[in-house]
Amino acid sequence: MTEMMKQIALASRPNGAPTPENFRLEELPIPTPGEGEVLVRVHYMSLDPYMRGRMDDSKSYAANIPVDGKMEGGSVGEIIASNADGFEVGEFVMGGFGWATHAAVPATGLAKVDPKTAPITYSLGVMGMPGFTGWLGLTEFGRPKSGETLVVAAATGPVGSMVGQVAKSMGLRVVGIAGGPDKCKMAVEQFGFDECLDHYAYDTASALRKDLKAACPKGIDIYFENVGGKVLEAVLPLMNLHGRIPICGMIAWYNGTSEVDNGLSGQQIWRHILVSSLSVNGFIISNFWNRLGDFHKAVGPMIAKGDIAVQEDITEGLENAPDAFIKLLTGGNTGKAMVKVI
Amino acid sequence: MTEMMKQIALASRPNGAPTPENFRLEELPIPTPGEGEVLVRVHYMSLDPYMRGRMDDSKSYAANIPVDGKMEGGSVGEIIASNADGFEVGEFVMGGFGWATHAAVPATGLAKVDPKTAPITYSLGVMGMPGFTGWLGLTEFGRPKSGETLVVAAATGPVGSMVGQVAKSMGLRVVGIAGGPDKCKMAVEQFGFDECLDHYAYDTASALRKDLKAACPKGIDIYFENVGGKVLEAVLPLMNLHGRIPICGMIAWYNGTSEVDNGLSGQQIWRHILVSSLSVNGFIISNFWNRLGDFHKAVGPMIAKGDIAVQEDITEGLENAPDAFIKLLTGGNTGKAMVKVI
Repeated sequence: MTEMMKQIALASRPNGAPTPENFRLEELPIPTPGEGEVLVRVHYMSLDPYMRGRMDDSKSYAANIPVDGKMEGGSVGEIIASNADGFEVGEFVMGGFGWATHAAVPATGLAKVDPKTAPITYSLGVMGMPGFTGWLGLTEFGRPKSGETLVVAAATGPVGSMVGQVAKSMGLRVVGIAGGPDKCKMAVEQFGFDECLDHYAYDTASALRKDLKAACPKGIDIYFENVGGKVLEAVLPLMNLHGRIPICGMIAWYNGTSEVDNGLSGQQIWRHILVSSLSVNGFIISNFWNRLGDFHKAVGPMIAKGDIAVQEDITEGLENAPDAFIKLLTGGNTGKAMVKVI
Repeated sequence: MTEMMKQIALASRPNGAPTPENFRLEELPIPTPGEGEVLVRVHYMSLDPYMRGRMDDSKSYAANIPVDGKMEGGSVGEIIASNADGFEVGEFVMGGFGWATHAAVPATGLAKVDPKTAPITYSLGVMGMPGFTGWLGLTEFGRPKSGETLVVAAATGPVGSMVGQVAKSMGLRVVGIAGGPDKCKMAVEQFGFDECLDHYAYDTASALRKDLKAACPKGIDIYFENVGGKVLEAVLPLMNLHGRIPICGMIAWYNGTSEVDNGLSGQQIWRHILVSSLSVNGFIISNFWNRLGDFHKAVGPMIAKGDIAVQEDITEGLENAPDAFIKLLTGGNTGKAMVKVI
């Protein structure tokens, strides 16, 4: 009898926020690994905001998922069959296995994960792409200096919490923005932020700006941009001369509805960049994999010592991935979102 | 009999484009220089787009001119009385003398100008603030590399022509944008641009973009931003991965009318910065005076050898400064705009 696996395909492109109808659960035979390939049984699958962009057909920094194609994403799993030298059955590896229970993939490009040094889920979050994104954006484009003030949104997420904790360790004042009082409490108590503002408590960018100004009495030197929308509009006028804005994403705008664009014109943005001599840098973490070793060297010991707190939000079962992803895009998760597939 | 001088004051704040009624010609007694001051008889006065911003009361990178206050600006003139050590009658100096025939100012902060090494007008243009702006923005924030492609608007202006000529000398492909066929011819023949597009020939940003794309077959690596508006909208989607955009100004938006904002949203700008990993840097040249010596060392010999062409647009008479300034803001000048005051 053929053994079957499950995967989730893109059934249709979303119009605005994705709905369950945009996804389709499929069963198909477990593939056999070809020459140089391994067969992986996925244990945990990552859910990340960037996946929303792949569901569209507009130009982005990576190829889009075709309709009826498998949803893409990073996962960690165990090798259950190997046709590649140096990769043994029973080893754990991280790679782009997609939204699936199994994948046969070329062994080149897989990263081995040692389950004895850290929980394997760390390879998807704090030690993986999101943590690396936060560390690289902060250190490379934020150019933090002790005594400065940093603001980051999605403060309890895997990017924001890394940014905030590394910035704190470098002597900055760190102000977070998060959705709801529970996340704000977590940002301060668990992640050590100096203050955290609940963006749900503000109807307008100007109301949020007023409290941000009080929380940042010396202005804002670094705004780590991972959300866009209302937070950006609140922050821009508070930026200090020669402030820095690394941009790794803008989840508030991913669903592409006009209401979240709230009137910040191109002219206003351009004018702020000029008037405050800002340095704004977009970056795509996949162009910086050669720096991953630097990240692990810098942050690994901090994680091992417990100086970097970790928060994970794990959903059980591949079939629940679409709902968990839809929730992620509206901030319904708390901490690094992933799906336990096995 | 008291000797009289003339100056031009801000009579009222403009609403959109300035009109002659926003200016007032005044007569007043020539002042006596105080301790440590010199009295300067202005010969040439600079007209620059940034002055438009000083006429508003909105936040900018420098203090605004109060209503009834003297219009500000850089000028070059001759010392006709000195109360400061080391500054002799007959010497030429450059400084912020405003729109005026005379000024008594502290000698500290004045730059001496040697009329024997170059025409004194060069201190306001090619060797002064505009030329320095072009050189610094290009070399510091543009990070040019041989073989890359650069686009700059206002190609025959003192900033754009410096940017284009220095970039050409570094081995870049240089495409200019200018207003009208005569300026485009000048950009290519006099300043050595590879191509120059006439922005008046395009009704929409997308039409301009089509021809820009043909003129930049390898995409755009550096867009030196000195105009904003339609050109920015045309350029952004053509930027290459890791492109750089130094921003020194945006004259198209200075008059603040909504029609020139032409629908480029903050979200679109932010998305382009992210998707193409752009590096966008605003800068105000007055924060970089410590680099002026580097500029003179790099570009002075090129000017002396005739490798940098110079184009000046000189209006006679202080009383004609308002009209010349209004013309400058709509691109009616050709080359560095200044007023011959004496």
